[in-house]
Amino acid sequence: MAGTQRELVRAEDIPLGVEFALGAYVVTEEEILAFSRQWDPQDWHLDPDVAAVTPFGGIIASGIHSLAIFQRLSVLGLFSGWAVIAGRTVRDVQLVKPVRPGATLEGFITATDCELRRPGTAMVTTYGELRAEGGLVLSAVFDVYVATAEIS
Amino acid sequence: MAGTQRELVRAEDIPLGVEFALGAYVVTEEEILAFSRQWDPQDWHLDPDVAAVTPFGGIIASGIHSLAIFQRLSVLGLFSGWAVIAGRTVRDVQLVKPVRPGATLEGFITATDCELRRPGTAMVTTYGELRAEGGLVLSAVFDVYVATAEIS
Repeated sequence: MAGTQRELVRAEDIPLGVEFALGAYVVTEEEILAFSRQWDPQDWHLDPDVAAVTPFGGIIASGIHSLAIFQRLSVLGLFSGWAVIAGRTVRDVQLVKPVRPGATLEGFITATDCELRRPGTAMVTTYGELRAEGGLVLSAVFDVYVATAEIS
Repeated sequence: MAGTQRELVRAEDIPLGVEFALGAYVVTEEEILAFSRQWDPQDWHLDPDVAAVTPFGGIIASGIHSLAIFQRLSVLGLFSGWAVIAGRTVRDVQLVKPVRPGATLEGFITATDCELRRPGTAMVTTYGELRAEGGLVLSAVFDVYVATAEIS
């Protein structure tokens, strides 16, 4: 368990209904192209000429890339301090607006629910948002197994 | 639009209820560690000693990595032949079983629904699975905007 060496926040101590700011991430065009080349090689994600004549008018990030950026912000900003066992589901990922090269993305998480699943293990539900210049670009709900104090 | 240069499958021509096999992807430990280092840097994804004492007993891939692998298989195996405009939502990503180093992951997609949203644009819903040795490791539902014939 990740919680053996440091004092990590146990499931029952996670405040519900409180929004955590996770910090910011600037996504470059180079990174957008590299991610899409590896994981989402659709031509309108890769070729500026093709992208120029889409409804977006230019290169946009893969939705999986935006989700990965959100996960990085979540881990560095919050989950690394929690006694996380594993993720279980990702629900309702809304790709609300395109993410463009140079965007500064800010992450936010609110824990909304915590249910004991078996001795030592709770399911914590979180609602996350990624915003660019204050506007929502991605939202998602995550269910994550988090250890309770009993098994520490 | 991605569909201007090649003959791409339009939304109304996508068969519903038919499972497409997307091919296979072998995920190495090196790639699992590199992906987690960049996008999901939780210590139990990165450190074999920490991972050894988790319920999984060793390194497992980030769920976002598994989803990225599924997206790659989807694009190369199917979406590159469709007149895709953009992804809109990813729903109900179930991380059913851990993905371990060396796993051969096979992707499958079934289009389940197609609804016209505005002239020229339909929302196609797909159900996807990633399987390892025949067993389900990840499932998810995707809503994707696909062009209809009218705007070609």
